[in-house]
Amino acid sequence: MTEDEAMRRAVALAARGLGTTSPNPVVGCILLGPAGDVVGEGFHAYAGGPHAEIVALAQAGERARGGTCVVTLEPCNHTGRTGPCSDALINAGIRRVVIAVDDPTPVAAGGAATLRAAGIEVVTGVRRDEAEAGNIAWLTAVRRGRPYVTWKFAATLDGRSAAADGTSQWISSAESRADVHVLRSTVDAIVAGVGTVVADDPQLTVRDLRDGTLAIKQPLRVVVDSAGRTPENARVRDAAAPTWIVTAAAAGTGPDGRVDLNALLTQLFARGIRNVLLEGGPTLAGGFLAAGLIDRVVGYVAPKLLGSGRTALVDAGIGTIADAVELDLTEVSQIGGDLRFTATLRPKENRNPTPLGGLN
Amino acid sequence: MTEDEAMRRAVALAARGLGTTSPNPVVGCILLGPAGDVVGEGFHAYAGGPHAEIVALAQAGERARGGTCVVTLEPCNHTGRTGPCSDALINAGIRRVVIAVDDPTPVAAGGAATLRAAGIEVVTGVRRDEAEAGNIAWLTAVRRGRPYVTWKFAATLDGRSAAADGTSQWISSAESRADVHVLRSTVDAIVAGVGTVVADDPQLTVRDLRDGTLAIKQPLRVVVDSAGRTPENARVRDAAAPTWIVTAAAAGTGPDGRVDLNALLTQLFARGIRNVLLEGGPTLAGGFLAAGLIDRVVGYVAPKLLGSGRTALVDAGIGTIADAVELDLTEVSQIGGDLRFTATLRPKENRNPTPLGGLN
Ligand SMILES: NC(=O)c1ccc[n+]([C@@H]2O[C@H](COP(=O)([O-])OP(=O)(O)OC[C@H]3O[C@@H](n4cnc5c(N)ncnc54)[C@H](OP(=O)(O)O)[C@@H]3O)[C@@H](O)[C@H]2O)c1
Ligand SMILES: NC(=O)c1ccc[n+]([C@@H]2O[C@H](COP(=O)([O-])OP(=O)(O)OC[C@H]3O[C@@H](n4cnc5c(N)ncnc54)[C@H](OP(=O)(O)O)[C@@H]3O)[C@@H](O)[C@H]2O)c1
Repeated sequence: MTEDEAMRRAVALAARGLGTTSPNPVVGCILLGPAGDVVGEGFHAYAGGPHAEIVALAQAGERARGGTCVVTLEPCNHTGRTGPCSDALINAGIRRVVIAVDDPTPVAAGGAATLRAAGIEVVTGVRRDEAEAGNIAWLTAVRRGRPYVTWKFAATLDGRSAAADGTSQWISSAESRADVHVLRSTVDAIVAGVGTVVADDPQLTVRDLRDGTLAIKQPLRVVVDSAGRTPENARVRDAAAPTWIVTAAAAGTGPDGRVDLNALLTQLFARGIRNVLLEGGPTLAGGFLAAGLIDRVVGYVAPKLLGSGRTALVDAGIGTIADAVELDLTEVSQIGGDLRFTATLRPKENRNPTPLGGLN
Repeated sequence: MTEDEAMRRAVALAARGLGTTSPNPVVGCILLGPAGDVVGEGFHAYAGGPHAEIVALAQAGERARGGTCVVTLEPCNHTGRTGPCSDALINAGIRRVVIAVDDPTPVAAGGAATLRAAGIEVVTGVRRDEAEAGNIAWLTAVRRGRPYVTWKFAATLDGRSAAADGTSQWISSAESRADVHVLRSTVDAIVAGVGTVVADDPQLTVRDLRDGTLAIKQPLRVVVDSAGRTPENARVRDAAAPTWIVTAAAAGTGPDGRVDLNALLTQLFARGIRNVLLEGGPTLAGGFLAAGLIDRVVGYVAPKLLGSGRTALVDAGIGTIADAVELDLTEVSQIGGDLRFTATLRPKENRNPTPLGGLN
């Protein structure tokens, strides 16, 4: 296997950790023996568990000696819950390390320098774009000091999220709803407004994964609820997953008297959360957008027309067409009968810089 | 060239007549000589002009004798502004006729029977679906006794057609706007509500065709204006194209006191119009949708978010999600930075049957 092929495989392996590694990144690693054959592979599966390199080294044993380590992120250089990967690679007799992305966190970085100082050949930037895309939530989160936020919505072709009488069930197809559960399974927290909780009483858990597997970890459920009016018997309060009902008193009060969303994200980051799915409703999504806190949008658009009812987004503080938020479409695909758009927001400057978070 | 290849070429040729043949269909024709070589081709370019078969026969001359006529629509059997094509094919010594679609109009049909009676071999249904799609507006119009209606809208990803302050210019990209002019060039009439005329003062003409050609015919501009309040100096009243300001008095008054849209379409049909582009605004589109008068939707969706402002569609008489109008997406493509959706409405029964219109 070539190093390039190995990196492609390492990026795919890394993705298997999505949703369970926070506050750590996802990482995949392939070890090639001196003859270029695969002698070990691994990915980082959960925080506190072994890093990808350690898993791969354990699998390879003596066959790693004189070989090449192909890894999606610069090997760590610090002792957290596990020892530094740089030392482990040196001790195993690895001769060459091929890295996709440098580690941006001050506490973990320096692995490449340590390896070079030990006489190991180090190459960086191989399939960097793919590896960055695979780790985009974590990379963005540590650079900004707040979780990466994906806003998900479902609407008709004419932009309605519910009909005039409030009905919204099955706007999107069964396939789209199943796809949302896959999306939920990749994040650390699901955020919804108290308006949605009162109107729809959603459970906000990961269910119905397409491959039939059970979710190995349920994301934290976060209800943004300034005055604490989430009903006592709301399904989000059940035992299926942890829940945080965030009041303005707990998170901080914004200028409008409601929950301060910047402060909320800072607190989620401090809890180790890197990747958040914002599931609405329209008012809370407007609040996040107005505060510049949305990084990515995933829209499920059903081929239907309504002509009345709620729109997917309100009160985003935009009054004129020149101020519309510009997106870059990154993907359009058909899910059941619906279309799914994925788009990123044209980056704005970091509005709320906080210290970088570290690995553990 | 095989007959199948010839039919594909005939369908493409036929499309060159779109926008200028009404009340006639578009038709393309290829003549193959006895050895299978192309000896003539033609399309129907404008009402009153020669039919496709006649153009092709004139080009082929004596080389057509003993050959095959490949034509997208059953050759006509009646004398209108031109003589019957069936007779012309018989007189030219054609031995075989290959047809995609039967003519559904009682006055023109019967061509295949006449040809067979003259000893000519007739085959029908070759590439029928493609040829039907190419003639969908005309075929639907003559079956229903009213023009085929395409509703076009432009909106942001969150379904807004204008910002809160009413600004809507450049919601969609320059490429999308140019594409709308191509769409306009394929129809017989452009319909807009007086609300749009008052708000935006659009000219509603065909301009800026992508290939640099000038429009050879401007569609009729139709303003739906119950009380005749279109301003005297409105651009739709300029000399660039014909215009009909439709008042309730002229077209008939519906139960809500506004222009009766069924009656309007019946009158447009009687004027020879088969293919209409409904350009909004949202209220008029809602009226058409509520009356079951939209056949196709073309939406230009810009990758932007607004969170306020008008939606693309209002007042369509739909109150609950179960009554949402279901569409079949037929095409999604990228136009500039925007997405263009094309979708057809799941057919409803003909609400307003009127006699079939004829060729001429
Ligand atoms: N189709 C979809 O994708 C989708 C998804 C979700 C929901 N929905 C629909 O959306 C509807 C509910 O939406 P909604 O707009 O009424 O409620 P919402 O967006 O779910 O919640 C809004 C509420 O969140 C609270 N909040 C606290 N801090 C806030 C802040 N800084 N900014 C904004 N909001 C803040 C506010 O209430 P307090 O001040 O009292 O805390 C606010 O009224 C339901 O009908 C549901 O079906 C549709
Ligand atoms: N983004 C887009 O694709 C797009 C396209 C077009 C317009 N627009 C925007 O839409 C806005 C104007 O839309 P609008 O909704 O106010 O006006 P509109 O839909 O253009 O016109 C509606 C008017 O048409 C007349 N009408 C007559 N008979 C009718 C019937 N049977 N059903 C419905 N309407 C009938 C009514 O006025 P009377 O009763 O007085 O005749 C009605 O108020 C503008 O801001 C424009 O920029 C956007």
